[in-house]
Amino acid sequence: MRVEELDTPCLVVELDRTERNLRDMAEAAQRAGVGLRPHAKTHKSPILGKRQLELGAIGLTLAKIGEAEVFVDAGIDDILIAYPIVGAQKYPRLLNLAERARITISLDDLEAAQALSQAARERGVAVQVLLEIETGFSRVGAQPGPPAVELARRLADLPGLRLRGVMTFEGHVYGGADEAARREITYRSAHLMLETAEALRAAGIPVEVTSMGSTPSAKLAMEVPGVTEVRPGTYVFYDANHVRFGLVTEDQVSATVHARVVSHPAPDRAVIDAGSKALTQDGPVLGARGLGLVKGLPGWRLDRATEEHGMLVRQGEAPPLRVGDRLEIIPNHICPVVNLYDVMYVARDGEVVDVWPVAARGRLQ
Amino acid sequence: MRVEELDTPCLVVELDRTERNLRDMAEAAQRAGVGLRPHAKTHKSPILGKRQLELGAIGLTLAKIGEAEVFVDAGIDDILIAYPIVGAQKYPRLLNLAERARITISLDDLEAAQALSQAARERGVAVQVLLEIETGFSRVGAQPGPPAVELARRLADLPGLRLRGVMTFEGHVYGGADEAARREITYRSAHLMLETAEALRAAGIPVEVTSMGSTPSAKLAMEVPGVTEVRPGTYVFYDANHVRFGLVTEDQVSATVHARVVSHPAPDRAVIDAGSKALTQDGPVLGARGLGLVKGLPGWRLDRATEEHGMLVRQGEAPPLRVGDRLEIIPNHICPVVNLYDVMYVARDGEVVDVWPVAARGRLQ
Repeated sequence: MRVEELDTPCLVVELDRTERNLRDMAEAAQRAGVGLRPHAKTHKSPILGKRQLELGAIGLTLAKIGEAEVFVDAGIDDILIAYPIVGAQKYPRLLNLAERARITISLDDLEAAQALSQAARERGVAVQVLLEIETGFSRVGAQPGPPAVELARRLADLPGLRLRGVMTFEGHVYGGADEAARREITYRSAHLMLETAEALRAAGIPVEVTSMGSTPSAKLAMEVPGVTEVRPGTYVFYDANHVRFGLVTEDQVSATVHARVVSHPAPDRAVIDAGSKALTQDGPVLGARGLGLVKGLPGWRLDRATEEHGMLVRQGEAPPLRVGDRLEIIPNHICPVVNLYDVMYVARDGEVVDVWPVAARGRLQ
Repeated sequence: MRVEELDTPCLVVELDRTERNLRDMAEAAQRAGVGLRPHAKTHKSPILGKRQLELGAIGLTLAKIGEAEVFVDAGIDDILIAYPIVGAQKYPRLLNLAERARITISLDDLEAAQALSQAARERGVAVQVLLEIETGFSRVGAQPGPPAVELARRLADLPGLRLRGVMTFEGHVYGGADEAARREITYRSAHLMLETAEALRAAGIPVEVTSMGSTPSAKLAMEVPGVTEVRPGTYVFYDANHVRFGLVTEDQVSATVHARVVSHPAPDRAVIDAGSKALTQDGPVLGARGLGLVKGLPGWRLDRATEEHGMLVRQGEAPPLRVGDRLEIIPNHICPVVNLYDVMYVARDGEVVDVWPVAARGRLQ
């Protein structure tokens, strides 16, 4: 079947481009001597996770216990759940996983750590832990320096937990106006994390892992001596925001939403059958407008969406569209988009060669 | 099991409040003598759809063939698919449905209508059609007046299609600054649609249905003589945007996302385990800020979210939170939120009494 024969809207992954994206990052990590631990939330597919491991990844990153269960069930045995696990309901499942695979979680709170420590001790299982450090994104994480050292001392003493090191998520890199700004943000986050790691070592706490996240900063973080691991996710497919950053061209993006024009109410407006239920409402970086890029048709802007309708607005001399025309949309942010689909159609040279389940879709807990 | 024992994040539907919301709208429609055809995209549950029919609804509205299939499979036999069906891949499934139930679709394009007409004629099935009229929302729909009349003439002549009337979606009512503005928008849309209906009748085209949408305008549209049908969806649960409109109080909202504080990095900031994958990025109406309301805690604003993290910011003297605290979030827009969950937990007086599948979740085609 040709991709043009697929009903719309649907998620299509181009296999050769995906493979190039995977290889490029794997080779960069190998050259830099830094561990690559891809965030598999982007694809939610053990098929792609295994390919990342075959290409040299040291393990995978996920956000939820339920996601990790899908990947451990598929035979993947080294997973960082980069999320603070809080709540007694979560411990039995986490500890089950920790018996079956090498599971590491992130923490930034002493009470949460104490509760997990007790559950782990009662079960007789050890959970690996990274202390999360806040380095500018203002999300989670202990403050670098003395507060982090004090918390690390306490964590290191808790039975049932094994503190392996520190991590940060430098998400504010997405606010960087250009490559230079993104480099400065990445270096600054790296240095805050690494200074804290040094302070931990000085306090007698071993630090074997210093881990950073994110696709736009991954190759920059690899340049910083002392960073042991990077956790990019989006690079498997890329998306419109990474095109805007100049990291890739439209043609290197390997996952798109195929949609169709269902209404053309005015010469300067067209409506497609992909709305927020197919594309999310995630916004663009760099002050851009719209909900994604219309591949190959820069003159049509995907201006806004309701649940089932995507509204295109014509800019200048863009070629006309007709009801029934098929378009490829490059979403702003691919990770939550993948989470909206049960399957991804896998294509090579325009031919559908496979259908992969989005196996960890909707694993919210 | 008590709702407090459910793992987070999860979607919880309070049964008695839901029943009150359903009854209130059903009674209003009955008093007004207007048909109620609820948009079931909000709940995606045949259990709730059947309850709406038991309370007097004349049928249901859905957006996608795949959604309608779920409801027809459950025994519901009168469905408006309020969406232009475009593309040859869709016709066999639509015509299968039209053989099993009374199916009406909306159209606004002659070529799309001609293609469907041919498929229906070949199959020997008639598809009921409403002509969609654009009355101010600038989404889909023919322009009211002569353009709509001309299109209706052509549609009425197409074999395999049976033109039953007109519909509009007055979605711009969500931009109305207050009740008076929303009333004016609703009346204006109603009059544009009804004038067009009159013009159709004058041209010899029978119009048995004049249908309008949306929860904030439904009771207003019922007041307009000549409107035969309303299609509110959100009223089954309501959401933060309808609280902001003053249509309901927080306590009348019957679906919330239960979440937990997983990090409390600073006295004025807390992070919950419900991010955009649990709440969407849909924004607030009326220039409000944030991604929803923290029920009972107006001093904590759900400021922003990444995929798995919701960031709360403390306003003034709000009571402190602790890691592990459970919160109820009232999302801005409940419809796409429901679409993120496989199940809804059904509660009465804090006790979980049932678990309902979100049966039409992810039915994108």
